[in-house]
Amino acid sequence: MDKVINHTISDLPIGIFDSGIGGLTVLRALKEQMPKESFLYLGDTARLPYGTKSPSTIRQYLEQNVAFLLKCGVKAVVVACNSASSVLKKDDDFGVPVIDVIIPGARKAVTVTKSKRIGVIGTRATIMARGYVQALQMFGSYHIFQQACPLLVPLVEEGMIDDPITNLIVYRYLSPLIRENIDTLILGCTHYPILKESIRKVVGKNIEIVDSAHATAERLYHHLETMRLRPTTSTTEGKVTIMVTDDSPIFKATADMILAPIKIDDLHPVYLNPKEIQS
Amino acid sequence: MDKVINHTISDLPIGIFDSGIGGLTVLRALKEQMPKESFLYLGDTARLPYGTKSPSTIRQYLEQNVAFLLKCGVKAVVVACNSASSVLKKDDDFGVPVIDVIIPGARKAVTVTKSKRIGVIGTRATIMARGYVQALQMFGSYHIFQQACPLLVPLVEEGMIDDPITNLIVYRYLSPLIRENIDTLILGCTHYPILKESIRKVVGKNIEIVDSAHATAERLYHHLETMRLRPTTSTTEGKVTIMVTDDSPIFKATADMILAPIKIDDLHPVYLNPKEIQS
Repeated sequence: MDKVINHTISDLPIGIFDSGIGGLTVLRALKEQMPKESFLYLGDTARLPYGTKSPSTIRQYLEQNVAFLLKCGVKAVVVACNSASSVLKKDDDFGVPVIDVIIPGARKAVTVTKSKRIGVIGTRATIMARGYVQALQMFGSYHIFQQACPLLVPLVEEGMIDDPITNLIVYRYLSPLIRENIDTLILGCTHYPILKESIRKVVGKNIEIVDSAHATAERLYHHLETMRLRPTTSTTEGKVTIMVTDDSPIFKATADMILAPIKIDDLHPVYLNPKEIQS
Repeated sequence: MDKVINHTISDLPIGIFDSGIGGLTVLRALKEQMPKESFLYLGDTARLPYGTKSPSTIRQYLEQNVAFLLKCGVKAVVVACNSASSVLKKDDDFGVPVIDVIIPGARKAVTVTKSKRIGVIGTRATIMARGYVQALQMFGSYHIFQQACPLLVPLVEEGMIDDPITNLIVYRYLSPLIRENIDTLILGCTHYPILKESIRKVVGKNIEIVDSAHATAERLYHHLETMRLRPTTSTTEGKVTIMVTDDSPIFKATADMILAPIKIDDLHPVYLNPKEIQS
């Protein structure tokens, strides 16, 4: 007897993208929360990093990446990059649910803070766009202290995790926030959870560190449940496919380290042609 | 009486490009050597940096940038980026003279070294392509010690010149080369001359520091003389036009600092559409 399987939109993978490996921290949280889902991850390594670039350029990259993932066939898109999340507009309509990482992170921070003094670190693009400031103010009145940390992404992409030089740079960036007596620190860049140990050393035990990965995973889970978009097939485990726009030799090793024990089923390079995508 | 001016190919500007601001060190040397020439500089800041990307991606960027400059109308192109220079092929024919920065740098190093122990620092792409190793070996037999320094470009692009953290990172990168008793150090990235003071502090007085900027300027000057491509009009001074693919707020300030006292006559953003350029 043939087994009849209804392949519906619910069985499509979830698309997710970042400029490089940072978004893998979000992919990991998503996969832990929803092991049956399949994921199609796009790392735009050919144009990495995003956070030092202008809003109009980042917006252009966001649109191209979303269009590319939609062309691959996905049921939702997670913008696993704060710099790209900060150029999403309220009235954006891409035809599928698009989840950013800023609102879930802000929501979590307000449940954690007691002194209402919240620090936000991110790339220059994220900090200048003031996305966390706006998101936090939606939830109430807070003292918000922002700090751009442009060197942290290159340090992570270079694999300089837990390195004295990295600790020194983290110390340089975080000192002004510590002096402001914050009790909560939002990691406003998906690369930063990889530096959590370094950050913990600098801020000590009394500051809560908030990252968006798990909050974003929960938000997407509830969204898919509500919209009845969870997988219908009896697959025991979904697949993880990673596509990169530049095939760097470091990517695979760092990706394995960040995702472990989650395995990558397929990793291959893709070429994004802006003109082709827009047509 | 009307003054008759013959506008010939010799009066066209010289095209020059880099991933960002590093190539401005070359532009400065070119302008000092040839004040009457006009320059059209393209900083591909939207896709910066190049040095962490793969040869095929860098090659694609090189072709697009050269095509873009040719479309603007230039009489020669200077590839003021070592990572891009390292993907030039011997039989490349772009229709105008294309000058790279690797061969002039190597040529200068061999005139300077006494112990024949030469160190080369560059981006990961430049070091892996072994362009300096091949160029030096064309001139004779040398002990060559290479070191990739991937964090130096982000440090320069962030304006962290002469900073204790930068000194520490430079020290980390250069120590293995100093232990090899080199007497000559090639700065195999056009960003590195901006860190010359930091590098001098680490290597001391006994190591000669070689950068390609002036050697490249001399090479281009002789090339243009030989091909009778020097300006024919009586202009007292040529113009400096800078185009950037991403309009970053930091670029202008850093560019002014690197080029001073040379003035930028025009700085404006451009959009590179790969498909359009190739057609």
